[in-house]
Amino acid sequence: MDDAAPQTTPLDAPGRSPRTDQAAQDAREGDGGSGVQHMKWWGWGREGVSFDHRDKPKLQPFVLEKVGVDLDTPGRPALDFDELPVPDSRAPEELLAALRTAAGDGHVHTGAMERVVHTYGKSLRDLLRLRAGDLPRTPDVVVYPGDEDAVRAVVDAVADAGAVLIPFGGGSSISGSLHPRADEQRPVVSLDLGRMNRVLEVDEHSRLARVQAGVLGPDLEDQLGARGWTMGHVPDSFTHSTLGGWIATRSSGAQSDKYGDIADLTRALRVVQPGRVVATRPVPSEATGPSVRDMLIGSEGRLGVITEAWVQVHRLPENRQILGYFYPSFEAGLAAMRDIAASDASTVLTRVSDANETAFSFATGKRSRGVSHLVSSGLKTVLKRRGWDLDAICLSFVGFEGGADAVKANQAVVKKIVKAHGGIVVGKGPGTLYDQKKFDTPYIRDYILDRGALADVSDTAASWSTLLPLYRHVREQADRAFARVGVQGWIMCHLSHSYHGGACLYFTFAFQQVSETPLVEYDVVKGAIQQAFVDAGGTLSHHHAVGTEHAQWLAEDISPAGRAMLGELFAAVDPQGQMNPGAIVD
Amino acid sequence: MDDAAPQTTPLDAPGRSPRTDQAAQDAREGDGGSGVQHMKWWGWGREGVSFDHRDKPKLQPFVLEKVGVDLDTPGRPALDFDELPVPDSRAPEELLAALRTAAGDGHVHTGAMERVVHTYGKSLRDLLRLRAGDLPRTPDVVVYPGDEDAVRAVVDAVADAGAVLIPFGGGSSISGSLHPRADEQRPVVSLDLGRMNRVLEVDEHSRLARVQAGVLGPDLEDQLGARGWTMGHVPDSFTHSTLGGWIATRSSGAQSDKYGDIADLTRALRVVQPGRVVATRPVPSEATGPSVRDMLIGSEGRLGVITEAWVQVHRLPENRQILGYFYPSFEAGLAAMRDIAASDASTVLTRVSDANETAFSFATGKRSRGVSHLVSSGLKTVLKRRGWDLDAICLSFVGFEGGADAVKANQAVVKKIVKAHGGIVVGKGPGTLYDQKKFDTPYIRDYILDRGALADVSDTAASWSTLLPLYRHVREQADRAFARVGVQGWIMCHLSHSYHGGACLYFTFAFQQVSETPLVEYDVVKGAIQQAFVDAGGTLSHHHAVGTEHAQWLAEDISPAGRAMLGELFAAVDPQGQMNPGAIVD
Repeated sequence: MDDAAPQTTPLDAPGRSPRTDQAAQDAREGDGGSGVQHMKWWGWGREGVSFDHRDKPKLQPFVLEKVGVDLDTPGRPALDFDELPVPDSRAPEELLAALRTAAGDGHVHTGAMERVVHTYGKSLRDLLRLRAGDLPRTPDVVVYPGDEDAVRAVVDAVADAGAVLIPFGGGSSISGSLHPRADEQRPVVSLDLGRMNRVLEVDEHSRLARVQAGVLGPDLEDQLGARGWTMGHVPDSFTHSTLGGWIATRSSGAQSDKYGDIADLTRALRVVQPGRVVATRPVPSEATGPSVRDMLIGSEGRLGVITEAWVQVHRLPENRQILGYFYPSFEAGLAAMRDIAASDASTVLTRVSDANETAFSFATGKRSRGVSHLVSSGLKTVLKRRGWDLDAICLSFVGFEGGADAVKANQAVVKKIVKAHGGIVVGKGPGTLYDQKKFDTPYIRDYILDRGALADVSDTAASWSTLLPLYRHVREQADRAFARVGVQGWIMCHLSHSYHGGACLYFTFAFQQVSETPLVEYDVVKGAIQQAFVDAGGTLSHHHAVGTEHAQWLAEDISPAGRAMLGELFAAVDPQGQMNPGAIVD
Repeated sequence: MDDAAPQTTPLDAPGRSPRTDQAAQDAREGDGGSGVQHMKWWGWGREGVSFDHRDKPKLQPFVLEKVGVDLDTPGRPALDFDELPVPDSRAPEELLAALRTAAGDGHVHTGAMERVVHTYGKSLRDLLRLRAGDLPRTPDVVVYPGDEDAVRAVVDAVADAGAVLIPFGGGSSISGSLHPRADEQRPVVSLDLGRMNRVLEVDEHSRLARVQAGVLGPDLEDQLGARGWTMGHVPDSFTHSTLGGWIATRSSGAQSDKYGDIADLTRALRVVQPGRVVATRPVPSEATGPSVRDMLIGSEGRLGVITEAWVQVHRLPENRQILGYFYPSFEAGLAAMRDIAASDASTVLTRVSDANETAFSFATGKRSRGVSHLVSSGLKTVLKRRGWDLDAICLSFVGFEGGADAVKANQAVVKKIVKAHGGIVVGKGPGTLYDQKKFDTPYIRDYILDRGALADVSDTAASWSTLLPLYRHVREQADRAFARVGVQGWIMCHLSHSYHGGACLYFTFAFQQVSETPLVEYDVVKGAIQQAFVDAGGTLSHHHAVGTEHAQWLAEDISPAGRAMLGELFAAVDPQGQMNPGAIVD
């Protein structure tokens, strides 16, 4: 990344299109280009779109104080792709020929850029590996089938060749679900669904849409929106993740309180396995034995290739409002979220940040606006008079959609609960800002990584009574881990995705890079946080999936017998281990 | 059943307890009694509780007209248990000894009554088989473990002995999930969870309860209610089905609109398999690969024995109201339910009967009360003036719970939708009656069976746009089937369980017994209805499960590859086919 590059588009430039850099990518492609666009091979988002801290005056001092990294130092020079030690493709000509027959001549690629783009997701580990030139194994070939028949032919060709198949959606995985095993001796085929990106059908009476799995979030919402519908699924990766990826990883979007997790809103699936297609019906509920649909959701490629799904869609809401609230403590905020979840109020999203994340939000405010000005005004005096510790303020958002009466009634119920927990209503400003900026965090991660700070995220879910002790345990274990590796570290958290019996806690952590082997330190910190999740009764991930990154905690989470069952299922459906081997259960 | 028996308690006697007949059952038991109570070996409910039509003056002429059966003819004499050709137990002494060690001496039973009670569920097929003395195979022994350790020991003993294990909850299955295969050569053990019936823990902060799987519905609600909580799960079988049975069959209760299906409200499970226990955590949502919890829900004993679960519980509602509505047609009612599901209104239950079922409801009214008087009054004139066909009236119920404001607001939203579809509000009377009588239907089934009419139910679910064509197709196919077997038949339907994208349709059918081999006619009629479900795009069952009864439609429903996957899962977890073999996938 080069701050001085004239073609760099800031994140919030008006009219910024994620699709403007195709020519550049095609040019680098080497073998003609697939017509499918990808993120930067070395980081988040499209080439030419990046974060910049210079109009956010509070961020530099904040990061310097908390992580010991000075954002004003120039970023490291952009990586040079040509210096990457990309291993040669090992795809035998016979397999390539079969794939060309299956997907069409122009849709089978073995160029170095294509293979590198399809090697990793976007976890910090993935980025650090790329920066270290750690590429022991890439896919040998990338294939872009254009329809389900082509997918079937590709899957059969891979099966017949004794090769390995790894499905690829948007490439936004942060759980290590995409890379081939380092010691994989068989040819590895990356199957990119990017050409299969259409809404095939909207059953308006049933409020269901049949959609191809390779569609990216914005494209999907554009196609649905043109007909007056929305899926309402907005994970943080939304701009660069696909429907198929969401389903394969059991994704959850910020608006899950209303629209449901992907597991709720996916009503039917088509999944290609060697020699067959599993196809379920778009029924709202069923008693047909263990749900095959639920078995395929979260399967991360281990059970085949998701080609399309029936998903729930909703009419674009009449009204939408995200209100901001402040709480005097995270405890108070959690308690309020819990009460809201059981109240008569219907909400679209519920979110509360701890004091650290609130401070970070204040620090990312622009010169001219942002949430921080809210506490620069007379409010400060009011809160102090109430006895609030201003450093402990916790920012919260609650979203409402629906008819005017319902929105008003729901806001009134929520307001009462907020007040009962000592909170106050801040108004619409911060919510609007949140709505605009919610997809920007990974750009910041890349930006500070270029300047010597390692940052990543870990998410969990737990019952309401487990959340607070879990939160404290994670904080404590992270601090110990920072001390163990001798770094200045920072950890912050928010609750999002409320359910009847619990919620998701989402942690972001960062620390100074202190050695030339940052993965050693990363493993200590990330490992401590994940271990704290399962030790405290949470799950290893609420919506980031298992992959290889979290696989070591699976037995502690779902019990050794539960993990064994998954292994038995995978082995039964895929006895030769040809479908994304190593993910979930190695 | 003997109408003249002085000890017969009518269904609606005040203070009727389902637990008063233990002494009688123990006396018949022969081998000491298990301490666990069961339904009549030959029909629904406890011995001594039965339906009677004589205070419902409209029912006899109704049934005579629709099915050609005269309820005033005396019922056939009660079956004599001693005349049943009960095969001897084949349990080897070594296995019995191991089971006694596992579960305790007094909890292993081989008496004829115990074995017959555990042979069948309560489908019409089951009852007809018993009446025909068709008992080719019973379990060889019934064992009642008292805790999970005992279950583990039993499961291991069965596995070691090369025997077969069939878990037994309340015995209310109507999908044939309970009987051993007729040609089963291995010893068959029925594992009755009836002693494991306690609420172990209520996590009030998380609104979750940990409950043993063998608890019956009323007992569970009593234990929860004593602490101010409810699970809100009320399937039609509620009085005689267990938590473990609900989970094993993917049950759904009448109040699923608010409380969710059992698959939603079950947050964690413990399941005993040979040599291991699968134990998941009570988290609200997770991305841990294919959900092992979802895999166990609906597994009908094929994946082991469910011993306990964490389930969502709710505070007893402040207010509860079920309002009645009339629609001029089923089409109008379905359209209204669809709009309610997408509206801002929160409902507890939504239900609308077709004209046939509405007429049946009117016919079951008591002399003094019931819904039928509603159309005997001035209302009739009003509706006629509006142009309604009084024979086409469709009765609907919508339930509301919550704070007074929310209930009022939700009722207002629903009222507007009802009016938009030409419906009218009838008031609280019918809803209260529905709430009181909702568990009585199976008693009526037994009563009319004794008098020569065969009745049964089939349920499906489909998307909103599929429901009406499916409904018409089922009606047509049922009428053809009645004609084919030369009987006077009746079929009626209601919608219940609304979801965003569709709903459940629940059919009840009845016809005159015309031969000494009623199962031949039954197969034609039941088969035609089930085939119509899958042909029209519905699922083979919304909440009655697959068992053996619906297994032949599984491949058409979830695709041949989906069925194959289930078979592969079962074979992988249970390679010798010792856990309820034959259910779901044979």
